Amino acid sequence: MNPPHPLVSRARVVALAILFLLVGAARAEPDPLLSWNAGPAKQAIIDFVNDTTTAGSPTFVPEPERIATFDQDGTLWVEHPMYTQVMYCLERVPALVKAKPELAKRVPFSTALEVLHGDRSAMERLTMPDLEEILAATLTGISVEDFNAEVEQWLAGAKDPRWHRPYTELTYLPMQEVLQYLRDNGYKTYIVTGGGQDFVRVYSEDTYGIPPEQVVGTAGSTKYGYDKDGQPFLTKEPKLLLNDNDAGKPEGIHLMIGRLPRAAFGNSAGDRQMLEYTKAGEGARLAMLLLHDDGEREYAYGPAKGLSDTKVGTFTQALYDEAKNDGWVVISMKDDWKRIFAFEQ
Amino acid sequence: MNPPHPLVSRARVVALAILFLLVGAARAEPDPLLSWNAGPAKQAIIDFVNDTTTAGSPTFVPEPERIATFDQDGTLWVEHPMYTQVMYCLERVPALVKAKPELAKRVPFSTALEVLHGDRSAMERLTMPDLEEILAATLTGISVEDFNAEVEQWLAGAKDPRWHRPYTELTYLPMQEVLQYLRDNGYKTYIVTGGGQDFVRVYSEDTYGIPPEQVVGTAGSTKYGYDKDGQPFLTKEPKLLLNDNDAGKPEGIHLMIGRLPRAAFGNSAGDRQMLEYTKAGEGARLAMLLLHDDGEREYAYGPAKGLSDTKVGTFTQALYDEAKNDGWVVISMKDDWKRIFAFEQ
Repeated sequence: MNPPHPLVSRARVVALAILFLLVGAARAEPDPLLSWNAGPAKQAIIDFVNDTTTAGSPTFVPEPERIATFDQDGTLWVEHPMYTQVMYCLERVPALVKAKPELAKRVPFSTALEVLHGDRSAMERLTMPDLEEILAATLTGISVEDFNAEVEQWLAGAKDPRWHRPYTELTYLPMQEVLQYLRDNGYKTYIVTGGGQDFVRVYSEDTYGIPPEQVVGTAGSTKYGYDKDGQPFLTKEPKLLLNDNDAGKPEGIHLMIGRLPRAAFGNSAGDRQMLEYTKAGEGARLAMLLLHDDGEREYAYGPAKGLSDTKVGTFTQALYDEAKNDGWVVISMKDDWKRIFAFEQ
Repeated sequence: MNPPHPLVSRARVVALAILFLLVGAARAEPDPLLSWNAGPAKQAIIDFVNDTTTAGSPTFVPEPERIATFDQDGTLWVEHPMYTQVMYCLERVPALVKAKPELAKRVPFSTALEVLHGDRSAMERLTMPDLEEILAATLTGISVEDFNAEVEQWLAGAKDPRWHRPYTELTYLPMQEVLQYLRDNGYKTYIVTGGGQDFVRVYSEDTYGIPPEQVVGTAGSTKYGYDKDGQPFLTKEPKLLLNDNDAGKPEGIHLMIGRLPRAAFGNSAGDRQMLEYTKAGEGARLAMLLLHDDGEREYAYGPAKGLSDTKVGTFTQALYDEAKNDGWVVISMKDDWKRIFAFEQ
């Protein structure tokens, strides 16, 4: 056998060195979506980021235009058996009744007290107008500063009924990874929630790394005034400015952001218009819906795909069909998520 | 004379070297406010930035909390003889009349046409309700996309009556320097304008380096719908959501930003509450008002300090007194600004 030509030998060394560097680089880059199982959902996120952030890509998006919007309840954190903010409002009723004892015997406040005393049927009796009256009474007529302090105090002590943990620990680890992955790639991440804008802003920065100015939600007006020392303050008023659900989501995005998102994530019929609006723009767009199909590790509800119906975060069959027709990606909690919560093993 | 002690000599060399480095560093750092004359206004800005961004300073502000808000008309660009957006609305009237010829003989549209034909007295005849009718007719009932395209097209051709330049060239260079200086020091800069939020967002990024999501302004609602191909779009509606003037400014800041600014800049009575609200927070806060006292290089109006009265950007004596009492800094255009426009020599 002839000895290898010196050039061949050198080429082989160079090739090995490059291979070594590449393997090294691959090793140094940890998986940004560690809690996701390999599959079309995880791949759609990675492809979207690569398509929109690789210089020279035909679908490259300049950094100022990298906007991603996330529904909160049921998309970033648990919404069952009841939205966290509604729990806050119900649990504020005793303080309200203490200040105004005449409310104790008046529906819906009396019903709320029964719910708090463990009467499960009382919750069923609360109609939507009842709930609206409780929300108005507990979320308005208070200064912005006092409201923030009360929410903060409540969050520090309240526990959810199933895991017995603070609500802010019930965020989905796979979605936290998506938020971080997008931000690491120059995306501004926004919450676009049907929940109260002021409520979510209290914890959004600590819980999701999302600053208050990047939270769009259902919002009421405030009224400017002065305290007895002449210091200005804002009072939360019972006048709705933006109902950030359904068509209110794209309308809220226009009001608060002023440009189309490149990516949007939701989990219920209330997110449909946000996803349609996001996909209506040109270039690479990502629309994703989380399906709660894991009754063992979290909850299972639809009624899409024959899952049980619910009033809290409805994922209709029509929404499922629109997703399939329009190239939105449905995330199966059961199949796509390796791990759901950070506190799990 | 004894020769210097070797240690003294070495200390002297070290001292000279340090001095040399310091002078070098000072030379390398260009003045960020080059168009400002030395004086209390310029110094207040520099002191504020140093106080809030120097690590270890008792008034240090963490970067996420560095928010600065700027009124636009009369603060960032020229507002006389008439707000740019009002000029846009008046100049849209011919297109409106072409589409609906019956408007040609109806007040206030007939009055607007007289204004455009050079009848100066016609402008005086336009009442506030007249103006509101013209604004509603030219700013609403149109899709967001079409509106943006029309404003962009108008801005590309329109010229102001005095300098005969595009309106977007009539921004104040000293204020552009403040915007940049604050951003270079980790501040998020916002426009908080009584003008239309959608109007200002069309050019804010190119003109001020401020992205649309950092423009808070007077805003109407939009309505989500679908075109004949089933594509979603938003229509601008004649329903006011936020009148971003006076108390509407702090209310708008709460709605859109959700935290108190650290610095606020204005020029008229409509900015009073924004400045009060900014100063109400603890720690270092900067509140500044621009006084238009330079009729030669720009315009002179008050009526503070005996300047002539105006309906466009009123700087009242009461505002001037509140500024002096509450530690707000009044910028004299005449004395504090070396250069007003970038297009000047």
